[in-house]
Amino acid sequence: MELHKNSAISCSSAAENYLINKMNEIRIFSPATVANVSCGFDVMGFCLDNVGDEMVIRKIDKKGIYISHIEGFDLPLEVKLNVAGVSALAMYDTLNVDFGFEIEIYKNIKPGSGIGSSAASAVGSVFGMNELIGRPFNKTQLTEFAIKGEAIASKCEHADNLAPALFGGFTLVKSVSPLEVLEIPTPKDLFATIIHPQIEIKTSESRGALPKQVDLSDAITQWANLGSFVHALHTSNYELIKRSLKDIIIEPHRSKLIPLFAEVKSATLDVGALGCGISGSGPSIFALSKGLDTANNVKKTMENVYSDLVIDYDIHVSKINTEGVKIIT
Amino acid sequence: MELHKNSAISCSSAAENYLINKMNEIRIFSPATVANVSCGFDVMGFCLDNVGDEMVIRKIDKKGIYISHIEGFDLPLEVKLNVAGVSALAMYDTLNVDFGFEIEIYKNIKPGSGIGSSAASAVGSVFGMNELIGRPFNKTQLTEFAIKGEAIASKCEHADNLAPALFGGFTLVKSVSPLEVLEIPTPKDLFATIIHPQIEIKTSESRGALPKQVDLSDAITQWANLGSFVHALHTSNYELIKRSLKDIIIEPHRSKLIPLFAEVKSATLDVGALGCGISGSGPSIFALSKGLDTANNVKKTMENVYSDLVIDYDIHVSKINTEGVKIIT
Repeated sequence: MELHKNSAISCSSAAENYLINKMNEIRIFSPATVANVSCGFDVMGFCLDNVGDEMVIRKIDKKGIYISHIEGFDLPLEVKLNVAGVSALAMYDTLNVDFGFEIEIYKNIKPGSGIGSSAASAVGSVFGMNELIGRPFNKTQLTEFAIKGEAIASKCEHADNLAPALFGGFTLVKSVSPLEVLEIPTPKDLFATIIHPQIEIKTSESRGALPKQVDLSDAITQWANLGSFVHALHTSNYELIKRSLKDIIIEPHRSKLIPLFAEVKSATLDVGALGCGISGSGPSIFALSKGLDTANNVKKTMENVYSDLVIDYDIHVSKINTEGVKIIT
Repeated sequence: MELHKNSAISCSSAAENYLINKMNEIRIFSPATVANVSCGFDVMGFCLDNVGDEMVIRKIDKKGIYISHIEGFDLPLEVKLNVAGVSALAMYDTLNVDFGFEIEIYKNIKPGSGIGSSAASAVGSVFGMNELIGRPFNKTQLTEFAIKGEAIASKCEHADNLAPALFGGFTLVKSVSPLEVLEIPTPKDLFATIIHPQIEIKTSESRGALPKQVDLSDAITQWANLGSFVHALHTSNYELIKRSLKDIIIEPHRSKLIPLFAEVKSATLDVGALGCGISGSGPSIFALSKGLDTANNVKKTMENVYSDLVIDYDIHVSKINTEGVKIIT
């Protein structure tokens, strides 16, 4: 990939660049994300607002990439085994600089939860480094680097969690090779509720649940719904969002791996959720609602359904984060 | 289907309704349409501007539906065997009136050409009747009636040619049952070029060319492209239209039935067409271009490719008709 200046840099003033270049340390918030989004399997994603990791990225005299500290979960400090490290290296290898970067990771998103834990790490390091060196890369280029990190967690190159973490809002990954990310408008009253049952679904099990072939008639229904969903997001048509958020291809297979999925879905729709589906490859379940009140009711409803289970869970209500990864200090 | 007043009627003035109700005869233009539109197989369509049928619809004292005259092609005058007659009957059967309708059909669109010949007939009669009785039905309701007519031509109920003929512009038929038609914005510089080779493709042959099952990975590519196409139409992003107008599922099968399809496609893209694909189930081939000049160059290019063949053809250049079926006198 060519290293060239992007529009962000040409828009920022010389003074601002000077300040950014003088910064040696940055703290960032790297958000959790929901990928797949029912009819948008493998292509759509959206960004959460108040769920995410924090990371500190520091410019250091020593060349190379170093992970000095990880809190929250037991993840490897070794750069080549850590998604944040691998994406950082992918970017660093294109730079010809006499300094290096040190990364601290404060993880809040549990690995394997289905809300883009590895994507948040992969995105955070490259976003932070890019800020420290005056933003030579645009968001699509940063996604390309992050894909390399994500690949060591998910064993394949995909961008459906990375794109919303970097761009914010709703994204459609039109293609991975070449990478093309489309930013789809976010209706302003849209809120997400996410429940994360504390169970482990093995990636192999989740992948094995996918059909290799699908009926053409089902595929047509799915793409009609996705086309309709994109139109609904453009027109802020909440009722159409509701009628579009259906997944007749993947959900019937993968939902079997998630405790009480059908009950959660049915109950959340009953209390007014626009749609409910599997977040990423699960086990988290997301619902979208119009308005914070409904999203909070959906939260209570999810809790009720799960109250008889012995499974622990996390639950979040979040507006759709249209900014994506950001500097917090 | 319930008979209820639509928004069109509530917006029109009492004086206008009085005039419409006093009219006893109406001449309408019912446009040709392109269905499928590459990645939008079975759901997307768009409306042509200067290619279509004319029809005269007349209110008469005698109850019932009568087809008194057909010009252009040899089609049955018997109402129950004629698509315009069947759709008219479907609507007439919901009315409780002491008069009838007489229909004259002046066909320009050759049946079997793949640009919505039967849809134009099915739409024309119900549109015209609706105008003569003060527009009690909205466009979706008219599409429901027209589906009944279209069904006798295509042996199944679908609306992908009907919807653009009635609504104009680009339409996405989200579902047929219940019928839901979405109007997608039309970028203003978009023009179509259509070549219709005068060959007959039997419906059974065209249907037989469709796979029953498709690879999930291909289906994902197709829905990424359709989502992207809808986004591109909303944002008038011509380059994205170009990158989205791909059909990796149907075209590889059906294009074999169309003479020199690959050559036409390749040559039109070379001279700047944004995309090129099969119109409906063929044999017509459509291309979309930015600007009339490019659309005219595409026409010349198609003619060049076909110049060595002994097959006759019709060829049209048209802006996208955002109005749809309309009154002309």
